[in-house]
Amino acid sequence: METTVIQQLIGEFFGTLILMYIGNGVNAGNTLKKTKSYNTGWLIVAIGWGLAVTMAVYSVGWLSPAHLNPAVTLGMAVAGHIEWALVLPYILVQVLGGIAGATLMWLHYYPHFKETEDPEAILGVFSTAPAIRGNKWNLVSETMATGVLLYGLLAFTQGDFTEGLNPLVVGLLIVTIGLSLGGTTGYAINPARDLGPRIAHQLLPIANKGDSDWKYAWIPIIGPLMGGTLGGLLFLFITSVR
Amino acid sequence: METTVIQQLIGEFFGTLILMYIGNGVNAGNTLKKTKSYNTGWLIVAIGWGLAVTMAVYSVGWLSPAHLNPAVTLGMAVAGHIEWALVLPYILVQVLGGIAGATLMWLHYYPHFKETEDPEAILGVFSTAPAIRGNKWNLVSETMATGVLLYGLLAFTQGDFTEGLNPLVVGLLIVTIGLSLGGTTGYAINPARDLGPRIAHQLLPIANKGDSDWKYAWIPIIGPLMGGTLGGLLFLFITSVR
Amino acid sequence: METTVIQQLIGEFFGTLILMYIGNGVNAGNTLKKTKSYNTGWLIVAIGWGLAVTMAVYSVGWLSPAHLNPAVTLGMAVAGHIEWALVLPYILVQVLGGIAGATLMWLHYYPHFKETEDPEAILGVFSTAPAIRGNKWNLVSETMATGVLLYGLLAFTQGDFTEGLNPLVVGLLIVTIGLSLGGTTGYAINPARDLGPRIAHQLLPIANKGDSDWKYAWIPIIGPLMGGTLGGLLFLFITSVR
Amino acid sequence: METTVIQQLIGEFFGTLILMYIGNGVNAGNTLKKTKSYNTGWLIVAIGWGLAVTMAVYSVGWLSPAHLNPAVTLGMAVAGHIEWALVLPYILVQVLGGIAGATLMWLHYYPHFKETEDPEAILGVFSTAPAIRGNKWNLVSETMATGVLLYGLLAFTQGDFTEGLNPLVVGLLIVTIGLSLGGTTGYAINPARDLGPRIAHQLLPIANKGDSDWKYAWIPIIGPLMGGTLGGLLFLFITSVR
Repeated sequence: METTVIQQLIGEFFGTLILMYIGNGVNAGNTLKKTKSYNTGWLIVAIGWGLAVTMAVYSVGWLSPAHLNPAVTLGMAVAGHIEWALVLPYILVQVLGGIAGATLMWLHYYPHFKETEDPEAILGVFSTAPAIRGNKWNLVSETMATGVLLYGLLAFTQGDFTEGLNPLVVGLLIVTIGLSLGGTTGYAINPARDLGPRIAHQLLPIANKGDSDWKYAWIPIIGPLMGGTLGGLLFLFITSVR
Repeated sequence: METTVIQQLIGEFFGTLILMYIGNGVNAGNTLKKTKSYNTGWLIVAIGWGLAVTMAVYSVGWLSPAHLNPAVTLGMAVAGHIEWALVLPYILVQVLGGIAGATLMWLHYYPHFKETEDPEAILGVFSTAPAIRGNKWNLVSETMATGVLLYGLLAFTQGDFTEGLNPLVVGLLIVTIGLSLGGTTGYAINPARDLGPRIAHQLLPIANKGDSDWKYAWIPIIGPLMGGTLGGLLFLFITSVR
Repeated sequence: METTVIQQLIGEFFGTLILMYIGNGVNAGNTLKKTKSYNTGWLIVAIGWGLAVTMAVYSVGWLSPAHLNPAVTLGMAVAGHIEWALVLPYILVQVLGGIAGATLMWLHYYPHFKETEDPEAILGVFSTAPAIRGNKWNLVSETMATGVLLYGLLAFTQGDFTEGLNPLVVGLLIVTIGLSLGGTTGYAINPARDLGPRIAHQLLPIANKGDSDWKYAWIPIIGPLMGGTLGGLLFLFITSVR
Repeated sequence: METTVIQQLIGEFFGTLILMYIGNGVNAGNTLKKTKSYNTGWLIVAIGWGLAVTMAVYSVGWLSPAHLNPAVTLGMAVAGHIEWALVLPYILVQVLGGIAGATLMWLHYYPHFKETEDPEAILGVFSTAPAIRGNKWNLVSETMATGVLLYGLLAFTQGDFTEGLNPLVVGLLIVTIGLSLGGTTGYAINPARDLGPRIAHQLLPIANKGDSDWKYAWIPIIGPLMGGTLGGLLFLFITSVR
């Protein structure tokens, strides 16, 4: 990485901002009343979030490694692709980027929040919630899906998401996880993707909002961090077998 | 650019013609009664318009920079990728191409206009209209979405949309914006895309047509031009940080 | 082309066979009763036929230029990419390939024809029919859509569909035409795609079949041949402007 | 192949595990009650399984040839791309990988099985079942579809699925087969994809499960193996014509 630490932090912040503005925008268009894309269904969610990641990686790939995800940063540190000293600064700006991106989405869809009276639907535009609540299996889903993500990122790109067509392949991996493993918890698989918008939901004066479901918030943080670590270790193990 | 100015203007005209024939055709197939693709939904709109851009860029990429969009031309001038003297001629032929492409679409779907009795639906085949009317937030949506477009175009392609697989990546960016940010105003994000067909709608003897909603027409012109400028400036700012 | 004429003819025959087995299979899965993909809608049609072309081009691209379409062969001759002496032999084996591919589709979906009682639906699995009947506008639609196809093929691939990722780009062009211009006549845009399966429909002992609608059959032959010629001429004209 | 036989077997095992965890996950998300992706339809099935193959090939392509399918291993042996001595070991670990992947899917969607009361639906998450039962035509469908698969794999990739963008092209071939030929039997086209999960379904204590439909199980084994052989022979025949 020839860029300065400042550039890397700007990249991680701005990339996560783009990711969440677009990704939360997909949720908003699908969920909020009276939008033109209302109720398009799960394909728009899975394809939209995959493209959000592709575009976010392209947006900042010349500045930072474009992790845009604390679980990815942690898994990359486990796999030896990034210095441990950068882990906490990266995570901090990723969460800040998540807050900023969710805020832009709120401004973009501002009049549609007034038309949507269900507070759970409004929170669902920002953060994830499980289809069936239950700490154990929700944690299993988030951990396993993030394990697939990290193993895949390491195997497909050798740790460099930004070279050539890698941003497309990384986006397709997100589409894949969404189509196959997202049906249970909504596949946060990224603590900044869940926590950042949840903080924005708590702080912003959003029309018709309810509470921010903080009792669930730890699962899409701890699950992805465990899954990212396990995915990194699994990759190291498989590459070591002869 | 090794091509003559005449070739560039033909490229911008013909490319915008292709863009609008195909793009408006997607709208027609989805909206007009008795078509085989009637009411397919938002996925056909977002994917179809993205492919329309990809195909239009491929169609004329050896003649012109394939902006096909006054907001892109303006943003590229701001970013230093095109001479200012070419901005107005480019915009003029882009709007003319938009008129011509919308006219071809009308001929292609001619008998289906007679079957469609809702004048708002018919205008919606040609031009955009907001899901919830309101100058302020409609302008915010168009400006922000076009800002994402211009920043993305500059970051992904370094200003050259036509090289290698760039036409595909540019098309995917349009798909992404459609899926995530299009739900509010229908993402004109291109003054020629909205104004050209609106002029065609005004002038052509279209069956069952109503008025051309000129009171809204300034928003998908001014919003994208502001957004294009801001996107170009944002890119210059981010690339300048060390 | 380093291949023998025999190899080229095998390529055009076998490629059109693959195209029609897959393409007609998409129709069968979407239209025939009790299939697992019943009534999926226009997206499966447009994406499926695009992929059918991509796969057919990949299947025989090392044997023949993979026109798989008399209108393409004619347009390529107009543009100087193939000798005129090969045009009729190519067209003949393309139509034979269309008959063979439709026959394989019929065997593949054999029990489902018995479950489908609508003879128009059954013919629609094989050949195209217009959404609104009318010779003039049906011919306009087929001609214009095939003009876009030929111009696009020449502009995107410089006449070589088989190199590198060109089979994918060609398939995306078909998807694009399906999404945008297919809603009127079902976009035959290929005389072999319509005539071959229509002959198969006439000859095979298909359960519940009705007549083969021969009065319409000339439109998806003449329209595409005119469109292919016009698309080739348009490309020559645009490349000649300085 | 520079890798050891142990690495190859790990690759085939782990790749089939990934394939079935993701692929069966697509089925689970589409079929099981109360998932977020419930009842999305055939597009999620076809696109999801295609991506499952792409991701599985990327996951282990540096370890093994990524057949992940006994019919592919057999067809590749017929075409001379792999030693016959490796065929049985490959097939064994592929089936074991299928069992393991289906088990992971079951854990991922654990609480949703309790909500789904239809035992046929639950078996359908694991293994295939025909839309219309009938040994003869079911066998024809599986054989022909796998013939297309093997011919395509050999023609498109020259037997190397893992180089460059080949994993994407291979995945698109699976999407194509799903969209066009999958409507009859659900396109197992892979004995490990059907037998592995069926064994898992038999052995695991799945809520609401019924019997494992062993009387059908031979068709998605024998059909694909015959089709794989025929596809390999067809490719050898076509490449031999001059």
